[in-house]
Amino acid sequence: MALTALRELAKSPLGNPIRLAIALYLLSRERAMFMDMVRALNLTPGNLGFHLREMEKRGIVKTYYRIGKRPTKFVELTDVGVQELENVMAILREVVNSD
Amino acid sequence: MALTALRELAKSPLGNPIRLAIALYLLSRERAMFMDMVRALNLTPGNLGFHLREMEKRGIVKTYYRIGKRPTKFVELTDVGVQELENVMAILREVVNSD
Repeated sequence: MALTALRELAKSPLGNPIRLAIALYLLSRERAMFMDMVRALNLTPGNLGFHLREMEKRGIVKTYYRIGKRPTKFVELTDVGVQELENVMAILREVVNSD
Repeated sequence: MALTALRELAKSPLGNPIRLAIALYLLSRERAMFMDMVRALNLTPGNLGFHLREMEKRGIVKTYYRIGKRPTKFVELTDVGVQELENVMAILREVVNSD
């Protein structure tokens, strides 16, 4: 039922529109550069960093640096993240299509 | 586009699964009793009260007491709340059905 599903969603690391946007952005990419995400999602680096740290703690994304001309921060969605995104999309689909 | 829509959602007073659940619960009812909502949504009174205060500040719900055998707290979705719920559902529908 919709209410049970929405309570489930509130506990999900993707149960927040910003984190859902981050996961959807990463889904179609092997990896993304942190600064590209700041621009594409129109977030501040501080705000994006905050959400990514929370998502990393929950195993949804991993972040790492690659050294080129200068160190560049990359972000990837993990397999756990892909699975969680599928769960969240299924819940939302159930909620919004059941009226 | 989904990301823009999701950033919009993050700003909405209903852009949080618990508040969306509260609004959906109220939508089908003229009014609800606070303690029935605590049970139905499986929230603590403190947690429900917190979300309702935030929603009331944004004009989404109104709460009031009626005196019977004892004072009973009631909650109603406002017209603004109904409109906001429709907006949020439209955004979510767009996001989850566009893959």
